[in-house]
Amino acid sequence: MPNTPRSIDLTQVVEWRDGEVRRQQDYLAGEEPLEIRVDGTPLSVTMRTPGHDLELAAGFLFTEGLIRERSQILSLDYPKRNGRRGRGNTVEVRLKAASKRKRFRRNFFMTSSCGICGKASIEAVRAQSLSRPNRDFFLDPEVLCTLPDGLKAAQSVFDKTGGLHAAGLFNNQGKLIVLREDVGRHNAVDKIIGWGLLEDRLPLSDLALMVSGRGGFEIIQKALMAGIPLVASVSAPSGLAVRLARELGLTLVGFLRGRRFLVYSGEERLISPIAAKSSVC
Amino acid sequence: MPNTPRSIDLTQVVEWRDGEVRRQQDYLAGEEPLEIRVDGTPLSVTMRTPGHDLELAAGFLFTEGLIRERSQILSLDYPKRNGRRGRGNTVEVRLKAASKRKRFRRNFFMTSSCGICGKASIEAVRAQSLSRPNRDFFLDPEVLCTLPDGLKAAQSVFDKTGGLHAAGLFNNQGKLIVLREDVGRHNAVDKIIGWGLLEDRLPLSDLALMVSGRGGFEIIQKALMAGIPLVASVSAPSGLAVRLARELGLTLVGFLRGRRFLVYSGEERLISPIAAKSSVC
Repeated sequence: MPNTPRSIDLTQVVEWRDGEVRRQQDYLAGEEPLEIRVDGTPLSVTMRTPGHDLELAAGFLFTEGLIRERSQILSLDYPKRNGRRGRGNTVEVRLKAASKRKRFRRNFFMTSSCGICGKASIEAVRAQSLSRPNRDFFLDPEVLCTLPDGLKAAQSVFDKTGGLHAAGLFNNQGKLIVLREDVGRHNAVDKIIGWGLLEDRLPLSDLALMVSGRGGFEIIQKALMAGIPLVASVSAPSGLAVRLARELGLTLVGFLRGRRFLVYSGEERLISPIAAKSSVC
Repeated sequence: MPNTPRSIDLTQVVEWRDGEVRRQQDYLAGEEPLEIRVDGTPLSVTMRTPGHDLELAAGFLFTEGLIRERSQILSLDYPKRNGRRGRGNTVEVRLKAASKRKRFRRNFFMTSSCGICGKASIEAVRAQSLSRPNRDFFLDPEVLCTLPDGLKAAQSVFDKTGGLHAAGLFNNQGKLIVLREDVGRHNAVDKIIGWGLLEDRLPLSDLALMVSGRGGFEIIQKALMAGIPLVASVSAPSGLAVRLARELGLTLVGFLRGRRFLVYSGEERLISPIAAKSSVC
């Protein structure tokens, strides 16, 4: 029986602070796909933090215009697993007949999904037969600490609007190679990778990707597709992003601010084994 | 002929700072849907900031696993409009036959879209025959300034992980009614609205919605569906979010930090007409 999805994970990370390295425990936000099924048919899969799943399903049906009021919902619950009903990654909804016809009134578009549990999501990425990103890539932590300022300095639009996400590729000397901005962080990363494809630069195996905001599953998946060995952000990754990075050997850095960062995966591309061992606490 | 989509808009806003009110110009990040068509068939629509659209389309095809290398792209361009090829909200891709079959290998899921230009997106929301949210709702700016701290104080998970978006509903006394968190901001808002639906509290016409992060089109659309009269965030809204809020009469506040905020739409729910007029600069 699958585990109940959790909204928080606890994991071990490596903290680098002003040249000092130590291991510590850190909390991660849970991220798992939720499948919403209406009258037995899958309607959508969305990556979400487990918790309040029934509200999420009800709210999604309402804000998408499929239902107008609560009375249109005949039932709303997790399906039974092994005879017991318990929290999982699927919510089943039964609607009154009148509501169902509204389902196809709005336009829908497609985006990628990978299954209905975190493990399946990781397996779907692995099924792309990706190789582990460049093992020989190494980035000096002192150089890594310069990337947020490099990204910010180059953001032409951000300074004006404050409303855009940015993604930048840097070489291991800290030089910005390309920067793209978008209201959607995943779009900024797709623009970067599209640049690489159109410039015949793929795989991007000797470059680090710095993103504004949070490091979610989708960003890590895209980086792996393009062969990027290291992803850094100024904020927190999700639990599923960390699991994917660990399983496929990508270096993942979070909370990169000033002269401090956390390494969630692949510390060997940042910290020599000797330095790391000497300071285990 | 439609206008060329822009990555930045300039608009007039109302600034409230420590009780002083003045009008000023502000830059907004552009947000428009981009439709990617492969061999004549629509593949996806994504809300993006105009600019580098061909890279975005190429990167999307690559990171979704539809193509592996540049040579699989036979052509990639904007379609002709009135005989001329120019930047718009559609990108057409022709792929080598071998690539196309990969299109259906991965799972896809659906999410909402509304058309292929900002205007169509707004029209699709309007087509839900929504009424203008509660005109009688009024929120004292002094109370509004307390909402970010109220949201932060209540975030049980955020404090631990730093990786979650939050959405909270407050009454006009600044009291938090319900808070939800998620790796996806749209999910946090859907959870809030789902709570309202399941608790028979819709429409949420006497409550303000405070969200962490940026205020995009989708958040405003969801708020309008639930009848919420005021949405505030600590960061910037997109240009399309502002247009939607203005056209449907929702009060939109951005950059709510300390004792300062910007009003992009519906200032009458925050500032009495007398105060606003007296300080026009």
